[in-house]
Amino acid sequence: MTIIDGDRLLADLYELRKIGEYRTGVHRPTYSPQDVQSRHWLATRMSTAGLQPEIDGIGNVIGRTSGSGRTLLLGSHVETQPHAGWLDGALGVLYGLEVARTLGDGIDVAAWADEEGHFGSFIGSRSFCGLLSEAEIDSCHNRDGTTLRDALAQAGFAGRPRVLCDPAHYLGYMEAHIEQGAELEDTGKRIGIVTAIVGSHRFRIVFEGVQNHAGTTRMSIRKDAGVALVNLASAIYQRFPQVAGSRTVWTTGRITLDPGAPSIVPGRAEMLFQFRDTDPDLLAKLDSELEGLVAEATRGPCKVTIAERGSSTPQAMDPGFQDALELAAERHAPGLHVRMPSGAGHDAQILAERMKSAMMFVPSIGGISHHYAEDTKDEDIVLGCQVFADAAAALVAG
Amino acid sequence: MTIIDGDRLLADLYELRKIGEYRTGVHRPTYSPQDVQSRHWLATRMSTAGLQPEIDGIGNVIGRTSGSGRTLLLGSHVETQPHAGWLDGALGVLYGLEVARTLGDGIDVAAWADEEGHFGSFIGSRSFCGLLSEAEIDSCHNRDGTTLRDALAQAGFAGRPRVLCDPAHYLGYMEAHIEQGAELEDTGKRIGIVTAIVGSHRFRIVFEGVQNHAGTTRMSIRKDAGVALVNLASAIYQRFPQVAGSRTVWTTGRITLDPGAPSIVPGRAEMLFQFRDTDPDLLAKLDSELEGLVAEATRGPCKVTIAERGSSTPQAMDPGFQDALELAAERHAPGLHVRMPSGAGHDAQILAERMKSAMMFVPSIGGISHHYAEDTKDEDIVLGCQVFADAAAALVAG
Repeated sequence: MTIIDGDRLLADLYELRKIGEYRTGVHRPTYSPQDVQSRHWLATRMSTAGLQPEIDGIGNVIGRTSGSGRTLLLGSHVETQPHAGWLDGALGVLYGLEVARTLGDGIDVAAWADEEGHFGSFIGSRSFCGLLSEAEIDSCHNRDGTTLRDALAQAGFAGRPRVLCDPAHYLGYMEAHIEQGAELEDTGKRIGIVTAIVGSHRFRIVFEGVQNHAGTTRMSIRKDAGVALVNLASAIYQRFPQVAGSRTVWTTGRITLDPGAPSIVPGRAEMLFQFRDTDPDLLAKLDSELEGLVAEATRGPCKVTIAERGSSTPQAMDPGFQDALELAAERHAPGLHVRMPSGAGHDAQILAERMKSAMMFVPSIGGISHHYAEDTKDEDIVLGCQVFADAAAALVAG
Repeated sequence: MTIIDGDRLLADLYELRKIGEYRTGVHRPTYSPQDVQSRHWLATRMSTAGLQPEIDGIGNVIGRTSGSGRTLLLGSHVETQPHAGWLDGALGVLYGLEVARTLGDGIDVAAWADEEGHFGSFIGSRSFCGLLSEAEIDSCHNRDGTTLRDALAQAGFAGRPRVLCDPAHYLGYMEAHIEQGAELEDTGKRIGIVTAIVGSHRFRIVFEGVQNHAGTTRMSIRKDAGVALVNLASAIYQRFPQVAGSRTVWTTGRITLDPGAPSIVPGRAEMLFQFRDTDPDLLAKLDSELEGLVAEATRGPCKVTIAERGSSTPQAMDPGFQDALELAAERHAPGLHVRMPSGAGHDAQILAERMKSAMMFVPSIGGISHHYAEDTKDEDIVLGCQVFADAAAALVAG
């Protein structure tokens, strides 16, 4: 049995946390000076661990084993959401590094660029998988309006080749991550073995009415875009529970009324709506439910348009890899592991398009995620890495 | 019969429109350089008309007749909403000026500061009526965060005395205004005689839940502040039509979900809601309906708090003044006038606290208001001023 060095792993996590430290978390948006520093730090660490590091033209950091045989790829990401947690992404990357150090051979480690979506959708892992065109790179920008090209140039990555995956070279891909939910904690489990990553269908729904004075425009002649929005949202909330599965989730994350003044009847309104599930058939069913509700809404006084934005398909994780993770989990935490879907998106769903892929979760204290208070107990961090290392060792041994 | 000079009136309106011209409208936010310029322009015009002008410590422009007897006060405002119409406010002020020029004596003219509420609620007319404290002036600021004190200093008005109304000196107050709705146009009328100005009850409703990840947080444990908001708004829209009067209006002008990201369950949400009517009893009934719906909402998973913000009480217009306006309207536009409430707030509702007050409307083309496309036909502008002058002459004659 291969034994990881828990103290070494924690020391690395603490050191990485210092880059962009914010309260008890970190602030490392993609391609920010802090993010770039963390990528160089990681490349140096890989080098020390005997891996050959490369930071490529999209900012992916890939550390290659010197072994010549088929290899297991382990990875996640190092950038963060604004003012977010210290483990989201970093944990999986440093698990990979620790497993590579422990096994000595047969492990490549990757930190994918921009999993957090500051500039686009999974641009790092999609680049590696040959799913990101130069034209799409041209079109990406962040919330501040900085283009991806400018950000890459400023980061010092522009002009470098983009590393493309050779699927034949890899046994597969494994990613460890914090759960970002409270299911493990609530049920007293310590390891989650991901069965599938949900697909998410995401929409921008726009309502166009007529902007008017809130005092002088009688109710009967109004075309209030905000009322149309509230009516549709309310209809969705009434209808979806009847059609959705037990694990389906749906969310309206943003509502905007235009012009948004207290005494003006809104002439335009917009909502960002999404739903997620692992079952493609159920997603399709919810699509048509939503279409039906939008069609009903168009019979009102406002124009309603719906546009899909950045949807993803569910990805099942490899059953053999899941078995390897379960075997290792049962060895180190007997009875304290569970198979579960991932409600969040991860680079593993992209890698799964090219090779066998799997994911493993460790508990999030209080289920907190995308917040500087995000945390996981040290003993869960160390246990998770040991399970991950055992599974990797078993897969590499074949 | 006193005959106004329509060409002179239109020429003045056109000249004032040039100060802050924006497309076919104007942009003259309160105390902006354009607004200050328009106040000085008006003071000069008053002087030429034989009035004694004064710009006071809150920016009110008051032109006093040289006559010593009881006087009728005519006015409105000259600042505008951002990128708004050329007649909203300006029309009533220049009607006053034209009537003063035509009658020669017995007319004071006022342009109240900030009727449009950039810094507060009717601060100009409330200052004149002794309803604005120094402490409130200290606390006012605009959307950009500029304090009222700084804005007054920059405008050159700080340190001047504030002119206070002597109610015994005035017969009363009359204000002409564009309708800002389409009722006159839709019914083929040319003059509206305002019976009462609506009261408006305005609320900020805040929902507090728990912010969470939109993928990993199961529906059953969510405390989604946005869902709570949509549910309450929807309940209001269902309930209010059953309780409201035929002219009651209600509006949700702004909705904010926090943090407003597509993949985050909103932890906080806020809506600005208001309703208006001329009947105090009905307003009270709607208050308690709203309270009841909010109480129901608090039984959900989120905390709900409601706070009143800047509500106003309905103000009936003086019956004798209404009769004078109707008599003049019937003379110049027989059968083409109507008594109607004002759905919008106006300085006349403040002046009515101190003296007899009345308002007269001219048609708005297409009902458009608070938009640069706002307009009124030249012949309606001139007719309105003639009716207004006749009524004023009759009231001054006693």
